[in-house]
Amino acid sequence: MKRIFYPASIVVIGVSEKPDNLAKYIIGNLKAFGYRGELYAVGRRESEVFGMPIVASLEDVPDSLDLAVILTPAAIVPDLVNQCGQKGIFRIVIESGGFSEFSEDGRKLEEQILEIAKEWNIRIVGPNCISVINFEAGVCLPFGPISPEIVKQGPASIISQSGGVSLTFLGMLSSAGVGVNKIVSIGNKADLDETDYIEYLIEDDGTEMICLYLEGISDGRRLLSLAESTSKPIVIHKANRGRASHSVAFSHTAALADDDRIVDGAFRQTGIFRAQGFQDLTSIAQGLMLPPVRGKDLVIISRSGGHAVTAADSAERFGFQLTPLPKSFLDAVNSYMRADVITLTNPMDLGLIFDFELYAKVVEQCLGILQPDAVLLINTYGKPEEEGAMRLAQRVGEISRETNLPIAFCVYTEATEIEVLQQMMGYPVFDDIDAALRGLETSRIWNRRRVGSDPQISPDRFKSMKELDQYQGDTRLQPSDWALRMCEQYQINCAAWEVAQDPEAAASCAAGLGFPIAIKLLSSEISHKSDVGALALNLMHAEDVRTQAESMLGRFNELVDPPTLLVQRMIPEGIEVFIGGVQDPTFGPVVTFGLGGVFVEVYDDVVFRVAPLSEKDACDMLEEIKASQLLDGVRWYGPADRDSLTKVLLSMSRLLLEQHEVLEFDINPLIVTSFGSVAVDARAVVAA
Amino acid sequence: MKRIFYPASIVVIGVSEKPDNLAKYIIGNLKAFGYRGELYAVGRRESEVFGMPIVASLEDVPDSLDLAVILTPAAIVPDLVNQCGQKGIFRIVIESGGFSEFSEDGRKLEEQILEIAKEWNIRIVGPNCISVINFEAGVCLPFGPISPEIVKQGPASIISQSGGVSLTFLGMLSSAGVGVNKIVSIGNKADLDETDYIEYLIEDDGTEMICLYLEGISDGRRLLSLAESTSKPIVIHKANRGRASHSVAFSHTAALADDDRIVDGAFRQTGIFRAQGFQDLTSIAQGLMLPPVRGKDLVIISRSGGHAVTAADSAERFGFQLTPLPKSFLDAVNSYMRADVITLTNPMDLGLIFDFELYAKVVEQCLGILQPDAVLLINTYGKPEEEGAMRLAQRVGEISRETNLPIAFCVYTEATEIEVLQQMMGYPVFDDIDAALRGLETSRIWNRRRVGSDPQISPDRFKSMKELDQYQGDTRLQPSDWALRMCEQYQINCAAWEVAQDPEAAASCAAGLGFPIAIKLLSSEISHKSDVGALALNLMHAEDVRTQAESMLGRFNELVDPPTLLVQRMIPEGIEVFIGGVQDPTFGPVVTFGLGGVFVEVYDDVVFRVAPLSEKDACDMLEEIKASQLLDGVRWYGPADRDSLTKVLLSMSRLLLEQHEVLEFDINPLIVTSFGSVAVDARAVVAA
Repeated sequence: MKRIFYPASIVVIGVSEKPDNLAKYIIGNLKAFGYRGELYAVGRRESEVFGMPIVASLEDVPDSLDLAVILTPAAIVPDLVNQCGQKGIFRIVIESGGFSEFSEDGRKLEEQILEIAKEWNIRIVGPNCISVINFEAGVCLPFGPISPEIVKQGPASIISQSGGVSLTFLGMLSSAGVGVNKIVSIGNKADLDETDYIEYLIEDDGTEMICLYLEGISDGRRLLSLAESTSKPIVIHKANRGRASHSVAFSHTAALADDDRIVDGAFRQTGIFRAQGFQDLTSIAQGLMLPPVRGKDLVIISRSGGHAVTAADSAERFGFQLTPLPKSFLDAVNSYMRADVITLTNPMDLGLIFDFELYAKVVEQCLGILQPDAVLLINTYGKPEEEGAMRLAQRVGEISRETNLPIAFCVYTEATEIEVLQQMMGYPVFDDIDAALRGLETSRIWNRRRVGSDPQISPDRFKSMKELDQYQGDTRLQPSDWALRMCEQYQINCAAWEVAQDPEAAASCAAGLGFPIAIKLLSSEISHKSDVGALALNLMHAEDVRTQAESMLGRFNELVDPPTLLVQRMIPEGIEVFIGGVQDPTFGPVVTFGLGGVFVEVYDDVVFRVAPLSEKDACDMLEEIKASQLLDGVRWYGPADRDSLTKVLLSMSRLLLEQHEVLEFDINPLIVTSFGSVAVDARAVVAA
Repeated sequence: MKRIFYPASIVVIGVSEKPDNLAKYIIGNLKAFGYRGELYAVGRRESEVFGMPIVASLEDVPDSLDLAVILTPAAIVPDLVNQCGQKGIFRIVIESGGFSEFSEDGRKLEEQILEIAKEWNIRIVGPNCISVINFEAGVCLPFGPISPEIVKQGPASIISQSGGVSLTFLGMLSSAGVGVNKIVSIGNKADLDETDYIEYLIEDDGTEMICLYLEGISDGRRLLSLAESTSKPIVIHKANRGRASHSVAFSHTAALADDDRIVDGAFRQTGIFRAQGFQDLTSIAQGLMLPPVRGKDLVIISRSGGHAVTAADSAERFGFQLTPLPKSFLDAVNSYMRADVITLTNPMDLGLIFDFELYAKVVEQCLGILQPDAVLLINTYGKPEEEGAMRLAQRVGEISRETNLPIAFCVYTEATEIEVLQQMMGYPVFDDIDAALRGLETSRIWNRRRVGSDPQISPDRFKSMKELDQYQGDTRLQPSDWALRMCEQYQINCAAWEVAQDPEAAASCAAGLGFPIAIKLLSSEISHKSDVGALALNLMHAEDVRTQAESMLGRFNELVDPPTLLVQRMIPEGIEVFIGGVQDPTFGPVVTFGLGGVFVEVYDDVVFRVAPLSEKDACDMLEEIKASQLLDGVRWYGPADRDSLTKVLLSMSRLLLEQHEVLEFDINPLIVTSFGSVAVDARAVVAA
């Protein structure tokens, strides 16, 4: 990787002096960013660009260069890769498109390249990318011209599956006061994928946070493992969420669609920040630049009452609380004022103060006397006040650095003025109240992760997807008795049950189990039993069981062969939940939890975690469903026995990891009361 | 109002040449914006500012000026108002603070001013505001300096309860390519409130959309009535939503808190756009500048694949669909391309085209051949490409105007460049994908409202709050039998019921009604009957009814006097919903609908509409709950009888309007099946 990000020598292949040649801009960018290593250009014809010669063949450059950059028609790339191997060039960036993202022929070309690369032990960035930037080394390889003046160097490195997005991130992070260290546009990630780059950037001194744009995830488990092991924050804008975007993702970088809710759960599980878009990624990165936010106590100081009220609404949404201010502080602040015209509350509206130096004093007093977990300072001003506002901004940055306390500084003024502020400050400037609170929330979450990481988790709990067998063959649905037996094997409590072949046996099982009794047809073909009359509930006498069994066996005699009944003791009322597991193509075994019944569908209220689950993961799942408060007891329900639920979740995690033939497993419903949980029905899909 | 927004003569009171005097900036702003009417300045001492004399008394200015602007200490304002009356000045803007927003003494001062104003028939803007701007007339009365160069004139007028927010709106709408016509900062709205200004701006030729910032709503029903009657869009950022912001709202402009969900419902009912913040208001206003979006078919054209995928995700969230492109169109577009390197799908990724003129051609072809409802065009570029990008922007504006088809134009580049684009284009430029889709969604919603307005609705269905009695006294809870009788009076189906005083009567009622039977204790003190054993369900025999009745009557003998039972026929299973009504202080009688049981609380799934409801309002309520699909039938439930539900909603609306003593009314549960709805229990709170 060092040779990719810090190459001592580069050859760019595909350069000509023609106006529509793009590869020449790679040379131009390297010149503009002051690249100091050896540099060569290869094209079809000898010529010159940016004052340097173009040679007509790779033969004419020295052997064993660190890096080759190829931007030629796709068809000749395999041959060029082979030539690189012969010349002892073992790192290649392929910027050309026309591979697996484009057509079936392109996919074959890509495979051919990979084979050649394997032979020579060559590692490849791309294809179909705008490649690599490392501002520390003057490396800037995109094929479009980049202006050095819009770039701010800083702690964020970028990995992006889209070239355009990597440049948008560069622009936004630069002008948000964050700044960028390294960029890699990974394109089709035919060889090196995002996890390879993350692994490198975790060790890279210049990188303090890693920002990604992904449309598909190559190895979900390795990604999680890296995220869990590092103390550097990882922020991912994972696009390609729904049905609408799938078609383009295939054609764009041949990404496979993931189940978006599994992505959410997996990221949360390992402390990855999921950005909801470009702006959101910027706010998160800004938040990570702030000193740590240790809790939820926030003071809002605003020059405008309306902005203060709007910020208070937003603070509530982001889980902050506005602590009342003590009189001592109010007195201290009022003593600065020209006139007593404002009632001071939190949020503070300092409306009529026109002297910005007083603002800085109020902020200092606030941090000194109140020691809140964070301060949000909102300044609103116009052109005539820019000078004072600029001084205030500088002072705010100083105060935050001196005290190591987080001040989210948010300004509403002209866009050009905000640019100037951000260039100057070396401290993030927010231009939107919600963005500022998102930043503070991010710092709070990251601080909690930093101090609260779980010592019980082994550093490599998520093995790479490559170590897991992904079953691709036919599948089979197992009936309830098989699945319930599996539950019992994993110490999951089931409502007492037996299997009966005929009405008489059913009645006698019932008598043994105790009433009330439910009987169900055992069948792998019928999944919603109540819909088709394959279920009878609340039977109070052996006689009722016999009658119902007779009727049910008769009805399904021809459909199911031989028809068999599950006879089950009914259990008292409780909250119905659903616990399941699935083998996900991106993340491997995944455990799911939600409310049972119709509501999991209607309210889409379900959470996911990747197995193996830690105890904390299981507890988090219970907290994370929208209906979580139901588990605390609502109306006539008492509080649910959460311990019993976490135990079932952990059992499901083990089951999925150990029983390789189980591809899907549902316990539905699992009834939870204040005194435990009991599985009532279960089903499983297994490898045929 | 004409005299406030188009004054032919103005006197500013409170001016001095001292550095900390704020009133002098009012003179400065009027000069800067080229106000051409008569202008006078009054201060304590004779002097001069901005080249004009300050006179020491109101005596020294002519009589009958159109408008006085007061910025002096609060204490002397009442006297000044009186002097204005004597001088025949009947419109006054009071910018001073220190009134009801500040203290009890301030509140008294404010009342005193209102009394004096009433005597003279004076109308007042404020107090505690930064007053009025009308760019058409060079009127600019804020007490802070405003730079004419940052202001773009345009179709949006602003009414704001916060001075700071009015200036933020001005800045944001100016630089988003919308532009502003008139601004009024309404402060404590002691006399004129938002509805007065809305009424004026609806008739005002220069105003094409009305944007508001409100912390409290003065007369909810008049607001709704105005919104429903006008063909101009109204956009409101209503802050002060939750508990956290209430304290500051009181101190800031003495706003009263509203129930935020009622605000949501009332706005939706009358086509008011609710902005979620400053940025959102800007996106909505931009959307209203676009030609009408007639449906959901969207084509996304992007220069970057990643932006295309992100936009496709966002489009799905905003309810758009990406129609597949026909081959004829793909061929037409491919014929422009230098090389066949991109697979064209919707979203279209035009990545490798560097010639911006081709973009314009693709957009034209798209509109011509496909005729989609809207196009989203995303351009990403850097400094070296600014010139071409600028030409593209201009061309896009022209195409949209020529075809009257909506193109949301979204650019990712430097902030300063976006400013330049927006200045130049006279067409909204979005700088964020979500903002662009919010804009398109807005245009779609507004177009639907424009073509689909309900002819059955009378133009003044919402009478002003002033015409409704707001009951303030003691209240009383009515027992179920009272409320069920009220239901029956309004043709709401109830499960058959009778009242019984003793076990024998209960048993005989039950026999008459038919089994299964439920019995409930009738009491206004006990609201959740199942919690305390005041409810017995599923009784199948007269004997069971007798036993349960005896036990219940015995148990509650001492608590309730005399204990009485409701004997009720139980009805078949169905979906449990909740329909209620309440007298809201802001909007008067309000009808509410949600799922019954514990889920309305857990998922907060409830909608509101203001009475009188139209039939369309009632139908909308059924669609608007999150669990709406449940009414279509899920699993074993068939589709609900929606007609029966809308009838109950309309009955509830009539009940609330006609029964003035009813302050709250709940039907819970109302059981709905495929064959109708039946009220099972009800309660009411009435004026004591």
